[in-house]
Amino acid sequence: MINTNYSNLKANYLFSTVAEKVRAYSEAHPDADVIKLGIGDVTKPLAKSVIEALHKAVDENAVAETFMGYGPEQGYGFLREALAKYYKTLGADVDADEIFVSDGAKSDIANILDIFDKNCHVVIPDPVYPVYLDTNIMDGRQVSFLNANEGNIFLPMPEDLMSDAQPDIIYLCSPNNPTGACYNKEQLKVWVDYANKLGAVILFDSAYEIFADKDGLPRTIFAIDGARTCAIEIASLSKTAGFTGTRCSYTVVPKELVRDGQSLKDMWFRRQSTKFNGTPYIVQRAAEAVFTEQGYAEILENIKLYQTNAKIITDTLDELGIYYTGGHYSPYIWLKCPNNMSSWEFFDFFLEKAQVVGTPGEGFGENGKGFFRLTAFNTPDRTQEAMNRLKEILK
Amino acid sequence: MINTNYSNLKANYLFSTVAEKVRAYSEAHPDADVIKLGIGDVTKPLAKSVIEALHKAVDENAVAETFMGYGPEQGYGFLREALAKYYKTLGADVDADEIFVSDGAKSDIANILDIFDKNCHVVIPDPVYPVYLDTNIMDGRQVSFLNANEGNIFLPMPEDLMSDAQPDIIYLCSPNNPTGACYNKEQLKVWVDYANKLGAVILFDSAYEIFADKDGLPRTIFAIDGARTCAIEIASLSKTAGFTGTRCSYTVVPKELVRDGQSLKDMWFRRQSTKFNGTPYIVQRAAEAVFTEQGYAEILENIKLYQTNAKIITDTLDELGIYYTGGHYSPYIWLKCPNNMSSWEFFDFFLEKAQVVGTPGEGFGENGKGFFRLTAFNTPDRTQEAMNRLKEILK
Repeated sequence: MINTNYSNLKANYLFSTVAEKVRAYSEAHPDADVIKLGIGDVTKPLAKSVIEALHKAVDENAVAETFMGYGPEQGYGFLREALAKYYKTLGADVDADEIFVSDGAKSDIANILDIFDKNCHVVIPDPVYPVYLDTNIMDGRQVSFLNANEGNIFLPMPEDLMSDAQPDIIYLCSPNNPTGACYNKEQLKVWVDYANKLGAVILFDSAYEIFADKDGLPRTIFAIDGARTCAIEIASLSKTAGFTGTRCSYTVVPKELVRDGQSLKDMWFRRQSTKFNGTPYIVQRAAEAVFTEQGYAEILENIKLYQTNAKIITDTLDELGIYYTGGHYSPYIWLKCPNNMSSWEFFDFFLEKAQVVGTPGEGFGENGKGFFRLTAFNTPDRTQEAMNRLKEILK
Repeated sequence: MINTNYSNLKANYLFSTVAEKVRAYSEAHPDADVIKLGIGDVTKPLAKSVIEALHKAVDENAVAETFMGYGPEQGYGFLREALAKYYKTLGADVDADEIFVSDGAKSDIANILDIFDKNCHVVIPDPVYPVYLDTNIMDGRQVSFLNANEGNIFLPMPEDLMSDAQPDIIYLCSPNNPTGACYNKEQLKVWVDYANKLGAVILFDSAYEIFADKDGLPRTIFAIDGARTCAIEIASLSKTAGFTGTRCSYTVVPKELVRDGQSLKDMWFRRQSTKFNGTPYIVQRAAEAVFTEQGYAEILENIKLYQTNAKIITDTLDELGIYYTGGHYSPYIWLKCPNNMSSWEFFDFFLEKAQVVGTPGEGFGENGKGFFRLTAFNTPDRTQEAMNRLKEILK
């Protein structure tokens, strides 16, 4: 009667174990000044333009004349039009009716699987955001991995597939969580050509695209020729605009994406209109404000601050000669644990010797063993202090 | 590669056909004063307490000290505790940790199927809200129907099952959409005992419970002894508090609900924490305000107005001797088309002779043929005017 695939899920105790170790340490050392660089959440408040848009939308709902009831499941035209314009600034032509507004990238990444057969062969990078794997286990799909490692600078290419089975669905996340590695256009073009050749679909997670705003890096897969026949992109305002608690994301399914004679855009529309009733009106107005000139300038101020933190970390790792990826185009820095420590050994060492908390890499896959994730979401002062302590304990 | 079950979905053109007919009529008769009693959405604005809570929560997000990032996927404790208290007033003991806050009943009704096997046998009333059927077709489940009709006053009981196959999942919606019929405690007890005997799970949709606030009718299935071992309840603030565009619902999965040795509450928690990132903080604060003394008094004022409209309609139907269900405990009135007209014949007759728009019953299932749905979401004046016209054309 129940979905027995759920029993194949592994419990992921990573974050609860981290929290428990920090709690125990703080209890034993009540005066310790613990610095948290494990935070995977933004810390800056919502931008002024966003706050104003929220208040205005709330007021509209206070009177019958402007009260907003059920909206279009796909999202309001005003937001989809604003997003289509935004895509133009990223070098991609995307129609407003190819954009589906939703409550979160996690929801869309999970729910998009509804339109695919349970017998698809799925390829997932290792290490990566654990939701890709868990949602496919829940459906009972066959999963194999893409070998991301120092050799390919944690940017695996088709030759890094760990199975001979032909992929139907390929997950890519760039800039990546947890490694912070970011594909360039040439690399993404190889993936697009590969997917088109096989008829596979790329599920492209661009949640961190705003951090790649330099050096000509692609911030959407639709900046790559050929992507419209092979890719679905899932984007989010969580990190872009601090919407982790406000909830808004968007998914792009191009008209040209057809498999087994069916338009995946039409299937996703059917899925969403049957199983979803739209994102709150007030949140969609807040999202619209992000893409105004003023709103976007405001959110970039926050991003710059996180980038400053990332640079404090990467400068320190450079100075110490520690191998890492990320940081330059990402709020995540993925470092090789010094002195060949395991992820958990380094976690304990860093906490006990320097009172700094990070995240052991093995929570993100087999290839995360021996690696460690730091994040750029604390303040510059605290981040600098943490790095000073790192230098001290590695002397 | 794609989910081929989608090709078994029937396109439901009901509402688009209704809209098209109204458009064509209005174009041909530009001076016609058309009254819409087909509206399935609330029309009163958000309550004052809700608006205040929203503004306050927005302001919290404007400064770092009170900014809210990722919240618990299941919903904040403050709201789950408020809901647990609310359940007490409905005569049910529900723990806060059995309550899962979400973005909408439609989402939860659809997503709860994730935890069930694709081979479950599903039973769905006819007529009913089309989402129950469509979501199961998408999963390829075997569906049979419960025969709701005049004979059982549109409150089908286990003997009204139209298949001999043993049900695993049974959908009940009370007060019902579209019939407005509402089960009493004795009837729900029969269903609970039946489900417990078979080991079936009842998915109970209580989206309209606030309209059943009289005559000792059950407003939650958990007011029925034995429901904790067989039922999941999906409730919503859409109709209760006018949240159709603000989006908040809650689903209750009791600890005692175990199938195949697994806790369905634990499975739903796993589903939601893997595939959902929580309802917006500001919306959860708005929902909390609904369940304060002041907030609840305010929303009841709106409900009373809709109930006034419903009474205008049922009084008229009583006077005309037209058979109907609903209206007394529901914003929906489900009437038998006069003079043995079909649903669409009556639609055309009512529109052309009286300029009133309703919804043909056959959009809700085979048993909706010859029936018609009116809703109580217009204003009292307009509703009275529509009923005066109905009397006139049926003279």
